[in-house]
Amino acid sequence: MPDRVRVFAPATASNLGPGFDVLGLALERPGDLVEAEICDEPGVEIVEVSGADSLNTNPRENVVGIAAAAAIERLPVAGRGVRLWLHKQMPLGSGLGSSAASSVGGAVAVNALFGGALSADDLVACALRGEAAASGTAHADNVAPSVMGGIVLIRASDPLDLIRLPVPDALRVVLVHPHAQVLTAEARRLVAERRFTIGQAVANLGNVAALVAALHTGDLALLGRSIQDALVEPVRAPLVPAFAEVKQAALDAGALGCSISGSGPSVLAFAESDALADAVADVMEAAFESAGLESDRYVGPVNTAGARVLA
Amino acid sequence: MPDRVRVFAPATASNLGPGFDVLGLALERPGDLVEAEICDEPGVEIVEVSGADSLNTNPRENVVGIAAAAAIERLPVAGRGVRLWLHKQMPLGSGLGSSAASSVGGAVAVNALFGGALSADDLVACALRGEAAASGTAHADNVAPSVMGGIVLIRASDPLDLIRLPVPDALRVVLVHPHAQVLTAEARRLVAERRFTIGQAVANLGNVAALVAALHTGDLALLGRSIQDALVEPVRAPLVPAFAEVKQAALDAGALGCSISGSGPSVLAFAESDALADAVADVMEAAFESAGLESDRYVGPVNTAGARVLA
Repeated sequence: MPDRVRVFAPATASNLGPGFDVLGLALERPGDLVEAEICDEPGVEIVEVSGADSLNTNPRENVVGIAAAAAIERLPVAGRGVRLWLHKQMPLGSGLGSSAASSVGGAVAVNALFGGALSADDLVACALRGEAAASGTAHADNVAPSVMGGIVLIRASDPLDLIRLPVPDALRVVLVHPHAQVLTAEARRLVAERRFTIGQAVANLGNVAALVAALHTGDLALLGRSIQDALVEPVRAPLVPAFAEVKQAALDAGALGCSISGSGPSVLAFAESDALADAVADVMEAAFESAGLESDRYVGPVNTAGARVLA
Repeated sequence: MPDRVRVFAPATASNLGPGFDVLGLALERPGDLVEAEICDEPGVEIVEVSGADSLNTNPRENVVGIAAAAAIERLPVAGRGVRLWLHKQMPLGSGLGSSAASSVGGAVAVNALFGGALSADDLVACALRGEAAASGTAHADNVAPSVMGGIVLIRASDPLDLIRLPVPDALRVVLVHPHAQVLTAEARRLVAERRFTIGQAVANLGNVAALVAALHTGDLALLGRSIQDALVEPVRAPLVPAFAEVKQAALDAGALGCSISGSGPSVLAFAESDALADAVADVMEAAFESAGLESDRYVGPVNTAGARVLA
C-alpha cells in the first residue's frame, strides 16, 4: 500500500435533460485533484486548499474532509489518519458537480491509502456525506458518475440503487460554463416549491425512458429527441443568462440535444462527432459572448473511468 | 387480397407501475375478434356486436367503426367500404384496454382487406381515433402494444414516437381481473386534478428509467424493484377493491412487482417463471375472493406478435 496517493475526481453533468436527480455523467475534464498521505494522528487534517479562495481547511467544514472521514470510519485504519491537499480545478456553483468531485476525491484517496476495500456503492455513500454538507440534501447524481465513470442512473436514493448505463462510442459531450454563478440551494428551492401536472411528469417519463433505450441501442437520433425537460428546465432557465439563445444556437449547429447541466449555469449539449461537438461549442460560447459573458468549454467523450489514482 | 378477414387484437396492460401513459404491453389473451368484408357501398357498416350488451352498431359511435373509417381514409379503397362484425371477448372498463383492442381490430382488418400498406404507426394513429372517442383523450399506451405486440414505450404523443422495448424470455405476466368496473374517465379525472411534488416525479423517473434498463439487460430483479409508482397508484388504489391486500399477496408469493393495470380494476404482476406466475395468480384471486369479488386470470408470456390476421 502506498503511503501517499494523488487522485483525480472528474466533474460531472447531472439531469441530462429529462432525468432530474436520477441521471448523471462523468466528464474527461475538468476535475479536482486530491493528494493524501497517511499520518499517525487519527482523523483528517486538510493541509492546503488551492484554486478556491472561499473554501477553508477545517475538515468538518470542507467536503473533502467530511468524505475522507466517512471513508476512514469504514476502513481498517488502525488508529491512523490522513493529511489532505485539495487542488480545486473547477469553479464552484457551476453546474459541474464541484462539491461532488472534491467529496469523491477525498473518499477515493482514503480508500486507496487503506487497502481499497470499499466498493463503488461504499465510495458513493462516503462522498454523499460531503455532498449533503454542501447542498443540504444528499443526491447521488453527481457523486455516483464521478466515482464510477460513465452514465449512471440513480433508481432510488434510500436505499441507494445505482445502475451504470451503456455509453455509445460516438457520443460526445459539450459543456460550456459561462462566468456566472448559480446557488445550488436556491436552484433546488425553486424546484421544491413547485407543483407539477401529470402532463409535465408524463413528458419527462417518456423522455427519460427513451433516453435509456437510446443508450442501450446506440440510437443517437433518439437520444437527441429525448433531451427534453418539461419539469425543471422551465423553472431554472431564468437563472442561466441567455439560456434560450445558447440552446437554440446549439441545436441549430447540429447538437443532438441541449439542456442545463445540474443547477447551471453550465449548459450541456450532446453531439455525434468531435467535429460537430467543436462546432456546437463554438456557437454556444458565441451566444454567451453576445450576452456579455465569457465562458469555458469542455468537449470530449464521456469519461468512462471515473475517479482514479494517478501514477 | 382476401375479400374477408378475421383479426385478433390483443388486450393490453398499460402503465406497468412507474410508466403512466408511456408504457404498455400486449397479452396473449384475452383479445377482441373482428371480422370484416369488403362491400361495394362506401363507408363502414357494423353488422353485429357480440359479447357486450352496452355497445351499439352505429359505426360513428363504436370504436371499431371509427378506427375502420380512419383506415379507409388512408387506403386506396376505390369507393368501396367494409362490413364489420365485432366479437368482444373481454370486459369493458377492466383495465385491459378493451376499447383499444376493438379499435386496433377495426384498423388492422381494413388494412388487411385493402392492400396492407399501413405502417404500425399508421395503424396506431387510426386506432387512436377510436380510443379518443372512447376515453376523451388519445393515449397510445394500449393501442400501440395491441398493434405492435411486445412492450412499447410512447416517448411522445404529438408527434407520436413509439419505441419497442426488448422482452426478456423468462418474463411472465399475471393479469387478474376482479368482477368490478372502473370508469376510465373518472380514473383519469382523479389524476388530472392532482398536482405532484418533484419528489414524486423523481421517484417515477428513476423507476421508469430502471425498468427500461432492466428490459434491455434481462435483469428481472431490477425489473421487479422498478415496478413502483409514486404518482398514480396512490391516487387510484382506492378505486380497486382490496388492492393493498392483492398486491401484498402477489409480492409475498414471489411476484417481481405488482401494480394496477391501466385504470384498473385489473391488477398486473410480473413473475420469472410459469410456476411462480401461477402461484401469484392463485393468491391474487384468493385475496379478491376474501373481499367478496370473483375474478378471472390471464397468465402467460408477453404477446410479442400483436394484432394478427387469423388464417
